[in-house]
Amino acid sequence: MEQHLDARIVERGKEFFKSISGEAPSIFNKGFWTGKVMDWAMQNEGFKVQLFRFVDVLPYLNTSEALTRHIREYFSADGADVPPVLKWGAGAAGFGGAFTGMLMGKFIRSNIEGMARTFIIGENTKEAIKGLAKLRKEGFAFTVDLLGEATVSEEEADAYRDGYLEVLDAIAKEHAKWAPLTDSTGTTAGGSGGPDASQDWGHTPKVNVSIKPSALYSQAKPGDVEGSVQGMMSRLVPIYRKIVAMGGFLCIDMEQLKYREMTLELFKRLRTMPEFRDYPHLSIVLQAYLRCTEHDLDELLAWGRAERLPFGIRLVKGAYWDYETVMAKQNGWEIPVWTRKPESDICYEKLARRILENNDLVYFACASHNVRTISTVMETARALNVPAHRYEFQVLYGMAEPVRKGLKNVAGRVRLYCPYGELIPGMAYLVRRLLENTANESFLRQSFVDGAELERLLENPQATLERELAAAPPPRSTPAAQPGIDGLPPFVNESMLDLTIPANRTGFVNAIADVRGKAGGVIPLFIGGKDVTTDDTIASTNPAKPAEVIARVCQGGKPEVDAAIEAAQKAFPAWRDTSPADRAMFLHRAADIARRRMFELSAWQVLEVGKQWDQAFHDVGEGIDFLDYYAHEMLRLGAPRRMGRAPGELNHLFYQPKGIAAVIAPWNFPFAIAIGMAAAAIVTGNPVIFKPSSIASRIGYNLTEIFREAGLPEGVFNYVPGRSSVMGDYLVEHPQVSMICFTGSMEVGLRIQEKAAVVQPGQMQCKRVIAEMGGKNAIIIDDDADLDEAVLQVLNSAFGFQGQKCSACSRVIVLDPIYDRFVERLVKAAQAIKIGPSEDPANYMGPVADASLQKNILEYVKVAEQEGKVLVKRTDIPAEGCYVPLTIVEGIKPHHRIAQEEIFGPVLAVMRAGSFDEALAIANGTRFALTGGVFSRSPENLAKARRDFRVGNLYLNRGSTGAMVERQPFGGFKMSGVGSKTGGPDYLLQFMDPRCVTENTMRRGFAPIEEDDDWIG
Amino acid sequence: MEQHLDARIVERGKEFFKSISGEAPSIFNKGFWTGKVMDWAMQNEGFKVQLFRFVDVLPYLNTSEALTRHIREYFSADGADVPPVLKWGAGAAGFGGAFTGMLMGKFIRSNIEGMARTFIIGENTKEAIKGLAKLRKEGFAFTVDLLGEATVSEEEADAYRDGYLEVLDAIAKEHAKWAPLTDSTGTTAGGSGGPDASQDWGHTPKVNVSIKPSALYSQAKPGDVEGSVQGMMSRLVPIYRKIVAMGGFLCIDMEQLKYREMTLELFKRLRTMPEFRDYPHLSIVLQAYLRCTEHDLDELLAWGRAERLPFGIRLVKGAYWDYETVMAKQNGWEIPVWTRKPESDICYEKLARRILENNDLVYFACASHNVRTISTVMETARALNVPAHRYEFQVLYGMAEPVRKGLKNVAGRVRLYCPYGELIPGMAYLVRRLLENTANESFLRQSFVDGAELERLLENPQATLERELAAAPPPRSTPAAQPGIDGLPPFVNESMLDLTIPANRTGFVNAIADVRGKAGGVIPLFIGGKDVTTDDTIASTNPAKPAEVIARVCQGGKPEVDAAIEAAQKAFPAWRDTSPADRAMFLHRAADIARRRMFELSAWQVLEVGKQWDQAFHDVGEGIDFLDYYAHEMLRLGAPRRMGRAPGELNHLFYQPKGIAAVIAPWNFPFAIAIGMAAAAIVTGNPVIFKPSSIASRIGYNLTEIFREAGLPEGVFNYVPGRSSVMGDYLVEHPQVSMICFTGSMEVGLRIQEKAAVVQPGQMQCKRVIAEMGGKNAIIIDDDADLDEAVLQVLNSAFGFQGQKCSACSRVIVLDPIYDRFVERLVKAAQAIKIGPSEDPANYMGPVADASLQKNILEYVKVAEQEGKVLVKRTDIPAEGCYVPLTIVEGIKPHHRIAQEEIFGPVLAVMRAGSFDEALAIANGTRFALTGGVFSRSPENLAKARRDFRVGNLYLNRGSTGAMVERQPFGGFKMSGVGSKTGGPDYLLQFMDPRCVTENTMRRGFAPIEEDDDWIG
Repeated sequence: MEQHLDARIVERGKEFFKSISGEAPSIFNKGFWTGKVMDWAMQNEGFKVQLFRFVDVLPYLNTSEALTRHIREYFSADGADVPPVLKWGAGAAGFGGAFTGMLMGKFIRSNIEGMARTFIIGENTKEAIKGLAKLRKEGFAFTVDLLGEATVSEEEADAYRDGYLEVLDAIAKEHAKWAPLTDSTGTTAGGSGGPDASQDWGHTPKVNVSIKPSALYSQAKPGDVEGSVQGMMSRLVPIYRKIVAMGGFLCIDMEQLKYREMTLELFKRLRTMPEFRDYPHLSIVLQAYLRCTEHDLDELLAWGRAERLPFGIRLVKGAYWDYETVMAKQNGWEIPVWTRKPESDICYEKLARRILENNDLVYFACASHNVRTISTVMETARALNVPAHRYEFQVLYGMAEPVRKGLKNVAGRVRLYCPYGELIPGMAYLVRRLLENTANESFLRQSFVDGAELERLLENPQATLERELAAAPPPRSTPAAQPGIDGLPPFVNESMLDLTIPANRTGFVNAIADVRGKAGGVIPLFIGGKDVTTDDTIASTNPAKPAEVIARVCQGGKPEVDAAIEAAQKAFPAWRDTSPADRAMFLHRAADIARRRMFELSAWQVLEVGKQWDQAFHDVGEGIDFLDYYAHEMLRLGAPRRMGRAPGELNHLFYQPKGIAAVIAPWNFPFAIAIGMAAAAIVTGNPVIFKPSSIASRIGYNLTEIFREAGLPEGVFNYVPGRSSVMGDYLVEHPQVSMICFTGSMEVGLRIQEKAAVVQPGQMQCKRVIAEMGGKNAIIIDDDADLDEAVLQVLNSAFGFQGQKCSACSRVIVLDPIYDRFVERLVKAAQAIKIGPSEDPANYMGPVADASLQKNILEYVKVAEQEGKVLVKRTDIPAEGCYVPLTIVEGIKPHHRIAQEEIFGPVLAVMRAGSFDEALAIANGTRFALTGGVFSRSPENLAKARRDFRVGNLYLNRGSTGAMVERQPFGGFKMSGVGSKTGGPDYLLQFMDPRCVTENTMRRGFAPIEEDDDWIG
Repeated sequence: MEQHLDARIVERGKEFFKSISGEAPSIFNKGFWTGKVMDWAMQNEGFKVQLFRFVDVLPYLNTSEALTRHIREYFSADGADVPPVLKWGAGAAGFGGAFTGMLMGKFIRSNIEGMARTFIIGENTKEAIKGLAKLRKEGFAFTVDLLGEATVSEEEADAYRDGYLEVLDAIAKEHAKWAPLTDSTGTTAGGSGGPDASQDWGHTPKVNVSIKPSALYSQAKPGDVEGSVQGMMSRLVPIYRKIVAMGGFLCIDMEQLKYREMTLELFKRLRTMPEFRDYPHLSIVLQAYLRCTEHDLDELLAWGRAERLPFGIRLVKGAYWDYETVMAKQNGWEIPVWTRKPESDICYEKLARRILENNDLVYFACASHNVRTISTVMETARALNVPAHRYEFQVLYGMAEPVRKGLKNVAGRVRLYCPYGELIPGMAYLVRRLLENTANESFLRQSFVDGAELERLLENPQATLERELAAAPPPRSTPAAQPGIDGLPPFVNESMLDLTIPANRTGFVNAIADVRGKAGGVIPLFIGGKDVTTDDTIASTNPAKPAEVIARVCQGGKPEVDAAIEAAQKAFPAWRDTSPADRAMFLHRAADIARRRMFELSAWQVLEVGKQWDQAFHDVGEGIDFLDYYAHEMLRLGAPRRMGRAPGELNHLFYQPKGIAAVIAPWNFPFAIAIGMAAAAIVTGNPVIFKPSSIASRIGYNLTEIFREAGLPEGVFNYVPGRSSVMGDYLVEHPQVSMICFTGSMEVGLRIQEKAAVVQPGQMQCKRVIAEMGGKNAIIIDDDADLDEAVLQVLNSAFGFQGQKCSACSRVIVLDPIYDRFVERLVKAAQAIKIGPSEDPANYMGPVADASLQKNILEYVKVAEQEGKVLVKRTDIPAEGCYVPLTIVEGIKPHHRIAQEEIFGPVLAVMRAGSFDEALAIANGTRFALTGGVFSRSPENLAKARRDFRVGNLYLNRGSTGAMVERQPFGGFKMSGVGSKTGGPDYLLQFMDPRCVTENTMRRGFAPIEEDDDWIG
């Protein structure tokens, strides 16, 4: 039976191809410039990347100069493999003189814009209406979609809603004039109630609208599903009301996975609104490439049956495969999509059948350009006797002309997905379409360019998959299978918080309640493996609710420092002589414990320092990464290295610990930085005296709990909170302290450096100081920056965790030509974010960590107001708690205090630069050199920044915060730091002294020859 | 004809083998303990090494406890692959109780001593005479040789001479009683004058003596051929006189290559002494394994003909093949021996023929156990019609019984080489013989153990060689063919000075004369590429002749420092942005220039700071190594490293220079350390302000000359000599100086550290201080140390360059059981060395570098005299110049100043330790931790030292000085240094700040996938 069906599918496919023989999508037509360039792109991956990136930036190139410069930068670099039609242009731009270059630029621009217009039905409402009417005359139905930039503010969401309302108004005036479509294959497609002549094909509204819900609300995020759905609904309802009013059809698009849950909820909520409950023409998109879609489909079917509500489904393969895969890889998540193309095809066929089986409940739109898929749906529908009025076919406008023609020939009911809108979002849409068309797996490319055999094109995807799997081994191995550096298993970062998983959200809620229940106790010191209490305590409080005491922490003084150093000294010899592998094992064990307590450890941060969920989770994750990475690094560095290969002589270079390490930690990454410094000292064999910040001493005690449970020998880790004024210098100057690991302000860091450099009586070694200090970090916005990205990332870098990161962006340097557009969007975006307690995941920004910090920042806000012009000062903040207004000022000059001093709060200076070089000079013009960012799509400016933007961590087209262990070894120079980057390959070296042991192996003229000796041939 | 000869050789060989069929050397007899153990050793390389090392140490194991402990350490380590007969012993020693262990130890000792006795004719004169007489009764002639320890003092050389005189006296009393030998083959062997019945075989003296000339003079060295020959002659002449008196024969042995030239000269001088000119019975040994022996033979033949003096040649293959090869590899010399066994065999056959061709002049002794070689000599002699009385055959006593039997059968005239003497040198001799017997290439092993085919054993070595060469590729590749780390060509150390090459000696003599001619001029500063003179100058003088002015050096002050910093600041941006490869190229160019000026640069040191030839040469060589190594390292570190493999993100970690480096250099390695620090700063991109020591400013100017010629851009290297009191602090505190690279005393180093830690107004970065400071280095002499090595190495470590090295040994810690023996030899050795101007290569020790140092050391000598008991105080030193007495004191306790303070001169404290642990505690018991040494043959103590002797550079069974770039990265910790080892892989990191650039490569959901991305399978 299945065999039989498959044969019919193949038969149908062949018929389909036959009906369009000789046709090809216009994009592939080599007679035109476009086709030539596409052909080159498909043969040269490097050129393809350059081309698509150029297409992406093109609409930002408003001047002839900018256009010519970018053409040169993208296409005339050394070794660039560009097609002759572009070479001429690039050459002309380079040496043909300004005029020739300008002409060429114009030519290229007009060709690319022409390409974009192939896929877009119009740039404005008028053009769109005209285009839609034309399509209908050709016998195609449509679904119209408004292109939009990323919505970064509520104003932009309003504008997007208004765009829909505008086009709907225009359609409302026209649609009555449109003749209904008939099924060109002659199939009777009328519903049970008989065909309705006023509708297309007798059963479906002429007006069909698609919408991307994420654009309807700027603050949508998976951690706040309810808030996101409400935000979207508020703008979707008026749109839908207008559609319903004209008897139209709405399809809610499915976007990236992070919007999936809220989109499904949005759809259900809209469908069940009393006002719309009786209106059936609402559908939702499902993506066959997602592994979870089968589950979603079953859920929807059950829901529809329970609610007795018919609805529609548009089934697509999915358009964000690269994005989802890259994100999953970057964040350490399970890959949510099928990783092999035929798996998506199999899934599609399976889900399509299930939908068709439920055709009494669900109206099915098969959206695919794949002839095999289309044939399968047609033959399955026929086999299941699905009435023609219960399903239709959809393809993208402008993309697969032969398929749409074939569909019209073979299937009759064809709807084109028609985006319309301005060229900036249009280019982004164009790039996505070009990518699809030119991918190796593209059905269109295989069919119309590569000329794959018909049998292969129409093959059952199950068979394709089996063939692919049989062709082992896979082209690239998985990370687990790939040995890491030096034969050690590779270090793997802890996963980022995935709030699309409901359990992670409830985990947080429960952990916060749990921790709150445990708060308020007295926390002892931990010295030599024993709890030690003192009379003096300091209360640590919740900055969002200053009355809530998190813990009362005992305070150590000089006697406790002495006791801790004695304990450490006692522990030192045995710990030093513990093998690197065994020391590393304790760190891995500590990592496992922290991993088990992930939510709880995060919750302490939410309550004690006011960190947002994700920031707190990532802080703990970073701490775990430090534990695992330094353990891994110690194994690498712990193996003695043979030096030289001379026979008769064995030289081994290895490292030994320095001695007692004083670890003086900050409050802003109270777990990660603290445990990172401690772990580095410990794994290299140095006992630790750990002094947490008084603002985060309870979190500091988490280290004690973890190392204690991990079974670290007594005295190796000692927890000694205390007042800096009482015991700070004493600890630093102690003759038995060999090194000081500090992270904090420049003032304290420099004081430590001075104190530690003076050799005290009885001191047996020069002290090593590792000091991570401040930053005054800038992000440069180049005139061709992608503002969709830049605005959100600057916002996140400046105001994430209230700007209390040494990596935070406190200066944004904007190039003149883009200044107004950027600042406008930034300001509106800053006004949109929610401010309130960090324990509510809906809030973007919370209180600063304590009242003294609040006071300091408020003073800087005053300075900012004096030195610059206030663009944003959010006074809509809670009255109780350590809140400060989110502040953005412009008109800041390099000499201003706001441009030079570290504020460590949500105060952002906007500075204007006349050129990229000037921007770099401003960026480099402080005593600090920690992080920086650049948003640019100019290859030359990116290269220049790479070279000349001299900071410890520079981010290109990314925000300036969020360095990950190993991937972005972190730390700066100048007054930002002394010592090498944390989480990097040189970090542990600082905790050890190198030794070299040379053995003369020759005795009596005889030396055993080693395998790696430089011996005679 | 040749073909015909070869056939006859093979025929003769077969006959030879046939005559001894069924025989095997006793050493291989598996019926005995020895044979079993040898069999195991030949199958297990690891066991062989352990066994031979154990045999070597055995005579030092004077107590049952020491014996049992060593058996356990050598043979019961985990995974040790030992034969059952030893396992039982090891097990017994381990758990069988003390008594069983003791018994087993005795058993093993007696077996091994028995093995030694197989090869030694007797342990004293009486036994020897008895043994020789017995041999003669068996029909064998002898040549007797006195075994000896390495001669480290003139007393020992006297004792060696006296040993010969004693045995000769004993022989003189006996030899008349011995019946002359006849040629057992019946060949008429009489000379032209007819057979002499009083002589063996009618033509050669019954008394035949062999002697190793190096043992006759403790100060023999290739740099002083004339002095060495005279030293040897003074003791050889009385011996020879006694031999001649009884009508005996003397053969002068050839030893290591370093003695070759003086041995040839010694032979010629003895042969031509008027007193002996008419006495023909003197011969010399030539070694066929040396590539230069053919040349030596031709020289000797020409000399003999010119002088009309007949003489003898004993031709051997050579016994130091491993040693010569290892030394050449370690020192970067051409390998002087043939590297393939058949090459030596070919050479032997060729030289034997030439000797036989000259049988009218030369009496030939063919010394070989190789039946092919023997047969060749026999057949060649027959073919050339060489009379039987012009050649004989020699084999080693106890080693090749079947061969000696066969020789007697086939060739008749067989002489056995008979060593006699005590067990300590006897064991060393045994080890050499065991090595020969068990080597894969050993003819005896191949013949009597491996059972190689006769055809193969008798094959013409030319054919063997061709076969070997055809079997390409060679088993181990040569260094040039082997790619280095990270794909870069490997770094290769500059060769050590080879004073066996006469051109190197004349090179030095000429360079010193040349430099002396150039001395005395005014040396300007060098700032921003220009010479700058000042009114203030300091005269640098020759410490051996204080009146000799080497240079008048202009002295910079604050204005010159400012000017230099301004020049450096100006040069910085361009130099920073010069690619690592281009910066490295300048260093390689500087290295080439220095290499060209090798002798001249060395000569400046001989004259300005009083360095000995070899020390000066190695200083320059080390400087060249620093240039090449840091250039190489910069290429390694200069390549940005991708961090992480997440797709859509490219992280690159790389380094940038810190800024201006102040390089403050010492006078003791005035070229190497100065140019090393400067080169590291320069190649990493940092401009340098170089302040040389005032004691070595002229040598410092060599850097200027070299960098200038290398074309380094202006301002990158600035030469600013000056008075520390005037400009030292100013330079260190200068806000524009980013780092200070210092090598010198602890006091100055700590002062720099303190000053540099204070941030000055206008300072933009925290300063990095790299300070290599002092040492108080100890060498431990374990109770089983090989004193032949230990005495010479301690001497060299303590008094090389007058002890003016931070790595110099200033404490020798001797274990109680060996204390007296070691100290006695050390003291006598210290008394033997020559003290005088360093420009005379005969002198071992010279003046200290200037008068202020001299004064300081003389004060320490007083302290030493007060704190301890003087063992040596050499007052036989030149009156003029900065000489101080070489001083050794004993009775020094750990708290003494002499045990704690760095003296930087030739003052050595001897300390006594009751146990190895106590020795380690004493060694570690100072504020310093720079170098150290251990002489021990206890595997456990060596392992313990490796772990617990906590110094930067530890040397096992080697002296504590002479670290080489890359092979022994150099530097210490505690108060010995701040910073990582020079010439090591971490050194350059200190001159740079790490940066990480992260590029988000995803645009519009599309990220190009990189080759090394962690992408899906």
